[in-house]
Amino acid sequence: MPYEFKARRRVEFSDTDMAGIMHFSNFFRFIETAEHGFYRSLGFSVVMPETDPRLGWPRVHAACDYHRPLRFEDEVELRLVVKERRTKAIDYIVTFTRVHPEPVVEVARASLTIVCVAHLPDGHMKAMAIPPEIGKLIEPAPAEVMAELEVTRARQPR
Amino acid sequence: MPYEFKARRRVEFSDTDMAGIMHFSNFFRFIETAEHGFYRSLGFSVVMPETDPRLGWPRVHAACDYHRPLRFEDEVELRLVVKERRTKAIDYIVTFTRVHPEPVVEVARASLTIVCVAHLPDGHMKAMAIPPEIGKLIEPAPAEVMAELEVTRARQPR
Amino acid sequence: MPYEFKARRRVEFSDTDMAGIMHFSNFFRFIETAEHGFYRSLGFSVVMPETDPRLGWPRVHAACDYHRPLRFEDEVELRLVVKERRTKAIDYIVTFTRVHPEPVVEVARASLTIVCVAHLPDGHMKAMAIPPEIGKLIEPAPAEVMAELEVTRARQPR
Amino acid sequence: MPYEFKARRRVEFSDTDMAGIMHFSNFFRFIETAEHGFYRSLGFSVVMPETDPRLGWPRVHAACDYHRPLRFEDEVELRLVVKERRTKAIDYIVTFTRVHPEPVVEVARASLTIVCVAHLPDGHMKAMAIPPEIGKLIEPAPAEVMAELEVTRARQPR
Repeated sequence: MPYEFKARRRVEFSDTDMAGIMHFSNFFRFIETAEHGFYRSLGFSVVMPETDPRLGWPRVHAACDYHRPLRFEDEVELRLVVKERRTKAIDYIVTFTRVHPEPVVEVARASLTIVCVAHLPDGHMKAMAIPPEIGKLIEPAPAEVMAELEVTRARQPR
Repeated sequence: MPYEFKARRRVEFSDTDMAGIMHFSNFFRFIETAEHGFYRSLGFSVVMPETDPRLGWPRVHAACDYHRPLRFEDEVELRLVVKERRTKAIDYIVTFTRVHPEPVVEVARASLTIVCVAHLPDGHMKAMAIPPEIGKLIEPAPAEVMAELEVTRARQPR
Repeated sequence: MPYEFKARRRVEFSDTDMAGIMHFSNFFRFIETAEHGFYRSLGFSVVMPETDPRLGWPRVHAACDYHRPLRFEDEVELRLVVKERRTKAIDYIVTFTRVHPEPVVEVARASLTIVCVAHLPDGHMKAMAIPPEIGKLIEPAPAEVMAELEVTRARQPR
Repeated sequence: MPYEFKARRRVEFSDTDMAGIMHFSNFFRFIETAEHGFYRSLGFSVVMPETDPRLGWPRVHAACDYHRPLRFEDEVELRLVVKERRTKAIDYIVTFTRVHPEPVVEVARASLTIVCVAHLPDGHMKAMAIPPEIGKLIEPAPAEVMAELEVTRARQPR
């Protein structure tokens, strides 16, 4: 479906820190993995060397709420959902659900906003409208999916 | 001053990604460097093996707005400001100002919320009140400092 | 087979650096992923909180020869082979073979030596003999496998 | 001196892993920090966008022997020494000495071989002779410095 994507990861030793849990910065690496997997599932890559001007997708906002820690060898399901597609930007929600060991539980929830830019010959970047051939592949999640996401969040065990 | 701390970093090659800029997840590593330097400046360490129960300071929220990219060998000043100190949590604002090369400009602004927890014998963590001997060292920034931060943000060159 | 293990990885954006290739330090993270997957395939985890004294497996030597770069979204097959099992240490060889895009080619070859240690109550570590119930699960690769590894290396396209 | 460079680092929380020590892959990031600082001390940067063809300095070999762990907030002195300068490659030795807390002790010793390459228009890299204006700035350490390095290693406390 062009409004969501799921990916699985196992927490690796190098993802952990001396507190024995996944370092908070590494959640953002996982978010990006889900995002780029979404693009591959739609038939393109976030890296587009052939476009003219060369397109890029820098992040302008990233945030994460951490509900519970992730530990070494935990398996986590990332669910990326398109919250909004604007002319030059896309807003995503990403949920982190620990699927092993049990109980299955949402451990974190993140948001990410990316913009479409052209890489100019002088090395700078300039925001531009998302090309229609890409924009048509990505659509915002239906209202009921967004509502269900809110319900899931409220229902987490304490 | 017990409500702010400044640290400098030079962007390293391993901080960059194939877009030629600092990877967005690495801003969160820099934020933590400023936070931990703040604690050292106050005479303690974020790692407290001697406390009973052993205290920890997990992050429950982290967010960053990226205004401009940071590039290899750019020098950046991190300014960490205590926004609010609550019974069990502290809210920080961190600004990223590129100081070399010129022009000096804010490139990103982040927020971070940490909570005080006790590490229980069963491996779990439980939120607890910040011990007074630590709480008394950390105070929220005066209103005029917070107001000035807002002005700085609004005044950034476009 | 208790002398080798294979794992696959796709190079992620956060693995790359501004030269457009996987940063050389990240090959060591991938090596460890293969090593820990090997242990899981044998029915145990590198993290053994229940043992008394608590066992650990620090690395005492790691090395990598880089023949060719890995790029974003390249798929790589890691093959970990037990070169030698000594009383307190294990020597591994890890080959990195790019399997997508073609041509299939070895891009790097690494070695890793780990030692078995006991975590002492004072926080220090002391080398100790590998417990028999673990040692019996791990056996050195037969001479013909090691010989074939050498041949593979020599046959790489230039 | 054009055959060595020293840099200091404090181990950060994000450098550690769940074993409570600096992750072995992060020693390679520190090695590179020393290398790039060496170039800056000689008046140039490892990134040379202006050269034609554009030069690069990929690593073809990296290795590290780990004698002791580094822990959070340990201060380490990195000493990079030019072991050999060849037509197209440079061999470095890097020692890691913990300078705080006491006792001052070598904790790791690494080697690194880099080659000079031209980035070709098709995206590939081709080894080339180190340009004389750079080669003349970098000279191998005198025999007595290399000998002293060996003595230092042998004299480490056990």
